Amino acid sequence: MTQTPYRAAIVGTGAIAAAHAQALRAHPNRATLTAVVDLDADRAGAFAAAWQAPTVAPSLTELLASHDVDLVHLCTPPSTHAPLAIECLRAGANVLVEKPPTLSLSELDDIARVSEETGRHVATVFQHRFGAGAVRLRGLAVAGHLGRSLLATCDTLWFRDDAYFAAPWRGRWETEGGGPTMGHGIHQFDLLLSVLGPWQQVTAVAGRQARHQVHTEDVSMALVTFADGTLASVVNSVVSPRQVSALRFDFERATVELSHLYGYTDDHWSITPAPGCGDVKGRWYADWSATESGHAGQLTAVLDALDAGTAPPVTLADTRRTMEFVAALYRSAFTGAPVRSGDIGPDDPFFRRMNGVDAPWEGVRAA
Amino acid sequence: MTQTPYRAAIVGTGAIAAAHAQALRAHPNRATLTAVVDLDADRAGAFAAAWQAPTVAPSLTELLASHDVDLVHLCTPPSTHAPLAIECLRAGANVLVEKPPTLSLSELDDIARVSEETGRHVATVFQHRFGAGAVRLRGLAVAGHLGRSLLATCDTLWFRDDAYFAAPWRGRWETEGGGPTMGHGIHQFDLLLSVLGPWQQVTAVAGRQARHQVHTEDVSMALVTFADGTLASVVNSVVSPRQVSALRFDFERATVELSHLYGYTDDHWSITPAPGCGDVKGRWYADWSATESGHAGQLTAVLDALDAGTAPPVTLADTRRTMEFVAALYRSAFTGAPVRSGDIGPDDPFFRRMNGVDAPWEGVRAA
Amino acid sequence: MTQTPYRAAIVGTGAIAAAHAQALRAHPNRATLTAVVDLDADRAGAFAAAWQAPTVAPSLTELLASHDVDLVHLCTPPSTHAPLAIECLRAGANVLVEKPPTLSLSELDDIARVSEETGRHVATVFQHRFGAGAVRLRGLAVAGHLGRSLLATCDTLWFRDDAYFAAPWRGRWETEGGGPTMGHGIHQFDLLLSVLGPWQQVTAVAGRQARHQVHTEDVSMALVTFADGTLASVVNSVVSPRQVSALRFDFERATVELSHLYGYTDDHWSITPAPGCGDVKGRWYADWSATESGHAGQLTAVLDALDAGTAPPVTLADTRRTMEFVAALYRSAFTGAPVRSGDIGPDDPFFRRMNGVDAPWEGVRAA
Amino acid sequence: MTQTPYRAAIVGTGAIAAAHAQALRAHPNRATLTAVVDLDADRAGAFAAAWQAPTVAPSLTELLASHDVDLVHLCTPPSTHAPLAIECLRAGANVLVEKPPTLSLSELDDIARVSEETGRHVATVFQHRFGAGAVRLRGLAVAGHLGRSLLATCDTLWFRDDAYFAAPWRGRWETEGGGPTMGHGIHQFDLLLSVLGPWQQVTAVAGRQARHQVHTEDVSMALVTFADGTLASVVNSVVSPRQVSALRFDFERATVELSHLYGYTDDHWSITPAPGCGDVKGRWYADWSATESGHAGQLTAVLDALDAGTAPPVTLADTRRTMEFVAALYRSAFTGAPVRSGDIGPDDPFFRRMNGVDAPWEGVRAA
Repeated sequence: MTQTPYRAAIVGTGAIAAAHAQALRAHPNRATLTAVVDLDADRAGAFAAAWQAPTVAPSLTELLASHDVDLVHLCTPPSTHAPLAIECLRAGANVLVEKPPTLSLSELDDIARVSEETGRHVATVFQHRFGAGAVRLRGLAVAGHLGRSLLATCDTLWFRDDAYFAAPWRGRWETEGGGPTMGHGIHQFDLLLSVLGPWQQVTAVAGRQARHQVHTEDVSMALVTFADGTLASVVNSVVSPRQVSALRFDFERATVELSHLYGYTDDHWSITPAPGCGDVKGRWYADWSATESGHAGQLTAVLDALDAGTAPPVTLADTRRTMEFVAALYRSAFTGAPVRSGDIGPDDPFFRRMNGVDAPWEGVRAA
Repeated sequence: MTQTPYRAAIVGTGAIAAAHAQALRAHPNRATLTAVVDLDADRAGAFAAAWQAPTVAPSLTELLASHDVDLVHLCTPPSTHAPLAIECLRAGANVLVEKPPTLSLSELDDIARVSEETGRHVATVFQHRFGAGAVRLRGLAVAGHLGRSLLATCDTLWFRDDAYFAAPWRGRWETEGGGPTMGHGIHQFDLLLSVLGPWQQVTAVAGRQARHQVHTEDVSMALVTFADGTLASVVNSVVSPRQVSALRFDFERATVELSHLYGYTDDHWSITPAPGCGDVKGRWYADWSATESGHAGQLTAVLDALDAGTAPPVTLADTRRTMEFVAALYRSAFTGAPVRSGDIGPDDPFFRRMNGVDAPWEGVRAA
Repeated sequence: MTQTPYRAAIVGTGAIAAAHAQALRAHPNRATLTAVVDLDADRAGAFAAAWQAPTVAPSLTELLASHDVDLVHLCTPPSTHAPLAIECLRAGANVLVEKPPTLSLSELDDIARVSEETGRHVATVFQHRFGAGAVRLRGLAVAGHLGRSLLATCDTLWFRDDAYFAAPWRGRWETEGGGPTMGHGIHQFDLLLSVLGPWQQVTAVAGRQARHQVHTEDVSMALVTFADGTLASVVNSVVSPRQVSALRFDFERATVELSHLYGYTDDHWSITPAPGCGDVKGRWYADWSATESGHAGQLTAVLDALDAGTAPPVTLADTRRTMEFVAALYRSAFTGAPVRSGDIGPDDPFFRRMNGVDAPWEGVRAA
Repeated sequence: MTQTPYRAAIVGTGAIAAAHAQALRAHPNRATLTAVVDLDADRAGAFAAAWQAPTVAPSLTELLASHDVDLVHLCTPPSTHAPLAIECLRAGANVLVEKPPTLSLSELDDIARVSEETGRHVATVFQHRFGAGAVRLRGLAVAGHLGRSLLATCDTLWFRDDAYFAAPWRGRWETEGGGPTMGHGIHQFDLLLSVLGPWQQVTAVAGRQARHQVHTEDVSMALVTFADGTLASVVNSVVSPRQVSALRFDFERATVELSHLYGYTDDHWSITPAPGCGDVKGRWYADWSATESGHAGQLTAVLDALDAGTAPPVTLADTRRTMEFVAALYRSAFTGAPVRSGDIGPDDPFFRRMNGVDAPWEGVRAA
């Protein structure tokens, strides 16, 4: 049976939208960018022209009222994700939403309820799960070639200067939902979680170390116990002069490492066998690829799932595990006690917002 | 005034003793190896011959009874350090003791009391404090050239196989005092403490991840808050296939990194300026050195202190800060709660032994 | 006295033109882009709009007839450089010409004659001479801090696939003047020459190793003797899967290395002291810079020279040394004998074209 | 049939002898060190004791007169290799001789004649041919997986200070046979030749750049054309502050690189695929090994050949190709003209000594 290309719309034409348009263009026979939505009509028009989208609409509501759309790419600010996603679901469209998918577990559970009611899906963009190295790592781990997982480290050490935070929506709980935990490190520890599976307990600290004009943390650190027994250290920072995104997995039979900044190819991964385990080198390099991790890779997996009628990745269930990790990290950092998976129920202040209780640092200077 | 060389004795002629003899030989006009002590007479004799020490004694007691010694290098197993050090002090000799200096805070405080009574000193070998890079880093930090310290990571990711742990004293609380926290990572986080100063709080986890024949942990992880506000992550492991000793300091004005294994030269350090702070490069490289960190470097500082009549480094006060950190890490890991500096008093089970309470893992297999 | 900004025109709006416009924008008070010339009116208009140039002209002749221009940036194909440069000089304008400045020594000498007649200058773009690292290296070498220069290597190992050479003007002597020697490696060995000074003798080989549709070489190698005694190896390639631009200078007191691809910052340089010469580290890093080598850096030097009324770099005299090196490399490769500086006079076939005699490889396949 | 271990003797117990003894010990069931010969009886005795060799002889002649030996390891100075090897052959023993095997092609051909007469073999130690990476590289190249070989570079950039050359036999044609070409770079370009096969033409330069007390060159450079069309650059130096032994092979389908100093494991090799040739990664890592290149690896191949009754590697024929390359490099450097394989016949001054004619540098200072 011939597959009609899915009709895709991009909502919000800021910087990240181009990555989505590019990803769609990489699958010309499977999906077509048919519409663009932005409150700013000039920006919407320019984007539509650049990417040859036939339709421009001033709002998602007007688009959905007049056009059939199979997949909506939500590239708007985080605080709008939940209501827009729900609107899409009710209109019969599936959603691919940029990270962070929502500002809270509460909002995420709202989306999940509507998804269940409507039978439509919401997937979150965590594109680093889909690079060749990440796929290979999970494959080798599941097949047992690496032995048991023992420990891991996950460092997001980035640098954002004062100019970056001069934008008024930056560094505020109500617009960004959090600091480098929610906005930067999430890419890396979501990948960590995709490899190591369910986490059991988080102990964390957080601080506003250098950027005193921001309300959120600018550094956080967590120790994590996973259900499979792995111990992991997670560090998130936007005050680190030498920038790197680095993950390390110490398995019984090999150390696997990824060191990149904002996207990786197989060249950014390395594997070091334990004594007597040289075979893992051959397994690792057997399907070497030069492709960079990115939105196109995830879109392939999303389209495959739509074809198969299953929930496209990263599914709401998987997304919830990562978002619950974020909430747990904040709660542990703000309360000083470990948090176990499942601890944060609907009545928990960290269920409704990531800074469930006030941050443990002094009042913020007037902007 | 002409300086008579200090008379030095080495007690215990196992593997590490050669590093001490080599260090003494590097200062021929300031110190002389005059005696060697070992229960194993053959080994003592061979060592004395190799390093041209005129006297061999079967025990420290017999040596001290018959010879004047200015400085005793204690290279015996950790469990003997406290009684031997006290014996030296009472005999009027100063002591340079290998790490870990004692098995507990209790023993360390015993030594400190006798040191105060006798006016003689005990210094602990933490040679990595004395390499050119570490000295430079502390100097630049104190002078303010690096700005405030924001965050740090300290990873001791080593690999010890089953054969290593086949020795019966390995991996047991009563003989080694602990696992990679006490025996391996201590080198690195002692260096961390020497740069960042007093620590305030430790939250930790520990596990026996892979070496099930050992009683102690084989992995530990800690989050540390320092008095100067720095947040740090510390990881200690003996189950990591790719081995590295890595420290990273993110200051406001630069990232300073050290990556080596068992000893470093300036080539193992790097510095990355924050935007606009290129001057730190010039400051860092102004006194570049090709010398490797090691016992000879620390011995220079010890002899300088003896000459000046002051407590040689690493002093008992500084040593206590590191040993209290070890005890706090274990207590936090075993009890699940943060530990603040000063929390572990004489009545605390972690004061008398590092595994104050039973380790949180299952019974150890018979050897 | 207030300096009126120099009026600059860009002729040829292909890919490299943007680097010139960007460089001009970096000096807003010293130079202004006042005109753009391109045979393709649409492309010229778009470029002028993008860079806010008030005037667009269909030809250099028409521009010079109607507007005063102080500095013409020649970004047209190499075969047009000589006639256009001479036209500028005769109209009273100075010229900054992209590399290769001409197709032959003959053309370059023609330009030099007109420059002398008119008192106007032609400078060639060799931007890598002007990065912070190159400036520092020449400074330390001249000051004697590195000792004598002993040997050097200069590798341009790039990769250009069949698609690259599908453009009809690529890989042909009459349009590009040569292969990777003339078009790619020239950047690197010009930097080499700027450090080591006059060359004395060249022995070379060249081959068409992999790209059989091109007429020129795709690999060349040369051994060079410099007047200061240095021996150097130069390799130029467009068939090398791992791409790198690498220079290495072995002085008595240090090895200085540069490893980059198409542009460098100080992070791409390293220095390794000879035993006992650790001081060079401090000298090297004393003025560390994060600026990337590029057109803006050279433009600074060009504007300084125009202000001072001197010949702007890279002067015709310096350019001739590099172009004579190219001709000598080809002559040695094609004739099998060493070529000394000065050997290639006006009657030499390699004076009029770089492939003075037929290349020593078989007939080229029809395009 | 049970194999009796071969009876091996080591002649000359200087520094390199231990590598041979260690290699023999790695094959306890295939070869036994039965005798040690050295003019210095004390040194011979100590070496025999250390490596448990039952027999010590003051000269090879006396040893051969009284004992049966299957394999003689010649570790004496280069000027003695030819007469000692011939003595062994006539006594019925096979020989494994350290590099350089002789001081001249003439001596090598003398050995070859006696080998043919006696049916006994002489193999030269070029241990880097036998590391896992070199074996794999030749295998992949021969199987065609890398495509055609296009260009190569081979850099031996080492550093030897004045103290090294203070030994009176260093740096003299009559005792060492040459400088870094004959004594240091030979390891690397022999490996190059083992991969690329027969060479056709060499053009070279050489100089005494820094060590004015030596008679030989301290730097040499060559351009080489191989029979398969590869162009290669070879650089040999003992005046390079940052030391490295680096080979690079640019094939059509991949770049293969080796960067080490005095011995390599698979970690010192890397492979970079050309676009579309990612499969070579898997082929390269399929049989990854942690073993270091060294004498033990070559000895395995030698013993295999003795078992099979064939000439053990590196055979006299292969050795001659490398030695002829050395002679050609010197002749080209000293005469200024290219040298082709086969050019150096028995009447050529470079046939009888590597400095066939006087070196092109000024008279040597008195020692």
